[in-house]
Amino acid sequence: MEEYFITKDTLINNAALNAIAYIPTEHLSKLVDPDFFKKLTDKDFMRIATFLAQKSFDEGGCPIGGVIIDGLTRQIIGKGHNTLGQENDSTTHGETAALRDAGRLAKLKGLGPVDFRKTTMFTTLTPCIVCCAQINNRCHFEKVFIGDITNAPSTEALLRAGGSEHIEVLEDPKAVALYSKYSKVRPDLHFIDWGGHKKLDEAKADAIKDKHTPQ
Amino acid sequence: MEEYFITKDTLINNAALNAIAYIPTEHLSKLVDPDFFKKLTDKDFMRIATFLAQKSFDEGGCPIGGVIIDGLTRQIIGKGHNTLGQENDSTTHGETAALRDAGRLAKLKGLGPVDFRKTTMFTTLTPCIVCCAQINNRCHFEKVFIGDITNAPSTEALLRAGGSEHIEVLEDPKAVALYSKYSKVRPDLHFIDWGGHKKLDEAKADAIKDKHTPQ
Repeated sequence: MEEYFITKDTLINNAALNAIAYIPTEHLSKLVDPDFFKKLTDKDFMRIATFLAQKSFDEGGCPIGGVIIDGLTRQIIGKGHNTLGQENDSTTHGETAALRDAGRLAKLKGLGPVDFRKTTMFTTLTPCIVCCAQINNRCHFEKVFIGDITNAPSTEALLRAGGSEHIEVLEDPKAVALYSKYSKVRPDLHFIDWGGHKKLDEAKADAIKDKHTPQ
Repeated sequence: MEEYFITKDTLINNAALNAIAYIPTEHLSKLVDPDFFKKLTDKDFMRIATFLAQKSFDEGGCPIGGVIIDGLTRQIIGKGHNTLGQENDSTTHGETAALRDAGRLAKLKGLGPVDFRKTTMFTTLTPCIVCCAQINNRCHFEKVFIGDITNAPSTEALLRAGGSEHIEVLEDPKAVALYSKYSKVRPDLHFIDWGGHKKLDEAKADAIKDKHTPQ
């Protein structure tokens, strides 16, 4: 008998979804009744990804989160967030963090590389054109739900062209507001994350130019 | 006075370059005289990347390594190898492993995200079109030396189009032979690494078809 912290009867609210974001993925099956996850809508999983984005922001990082679930059982198989701010890691975005977590879990169970073709990816920001959209295409997810296309140009078309059949935009207003706030308070991280120090320098040069342009 | 294991007078040979591949990057400055690195040619750094590929192969993984050096001092700032076989990590290739290592080291020194514009990337296999070529373009390396274009279609043009000014093909015959051997003995990892389980299944289907095609 498991001592579930979140049972099948627990109310689906921000407190529960935030707890799930924080609990290491390998412990979810000990603390959360699988039937609770079966009650969750796609919007709820996007909210969990949003709480991962919030966790990252609170740690001084970029607020972008990702969650991968098994398409059939609806259980979380991997999740994570961008770690550029926390670890100077220019390769770990929301999607890649979730992918790596899924691999790590499979390894803990003595399994090999994960087959993502029956899984669904939720990402709070539209996957970056540089790597995440491409990596998503390589994984051939059954479904991809992309969040925020307000703060970044949508990569929906790129994902469709890559052969992903079910692509759906599912903006979480909380994630959109958070990214918007972050891009203003941490423009340094925001620009480095998208285009390295070159993009940051260009943004700085533009800002100086704008300041000196007669109004 | 440092007790260098590899001094400025140490002969540049496979034994020394292999040792450098194995020594954690943060310890190199304690064990290797900076003047030794100054003696190394681009070919030598590609050989270090090749020994990282060999290390990965010996661990049961994909033999692809990456090394990043400071363009001015010629010291290694990050290195690593693909970890799909070791950690089921579909996002860590030679390049991304080296990038993450460089970020980790900067973090150890209390620094922020690394500016790669004055650095050089060495990668034993031409960067994958899916993520590594794109990520390389985002980092704006001063120079990129791409290895093996024999076992994979060259991504030199993509890197050039991305604005990298100095792109040079520098095949290490040892790395080319190793990748060729690996793709035959571990076709499962080879295909999953390039295109997920979908590509592996397609390769299996092709193999069955070929078997049934009258000669």
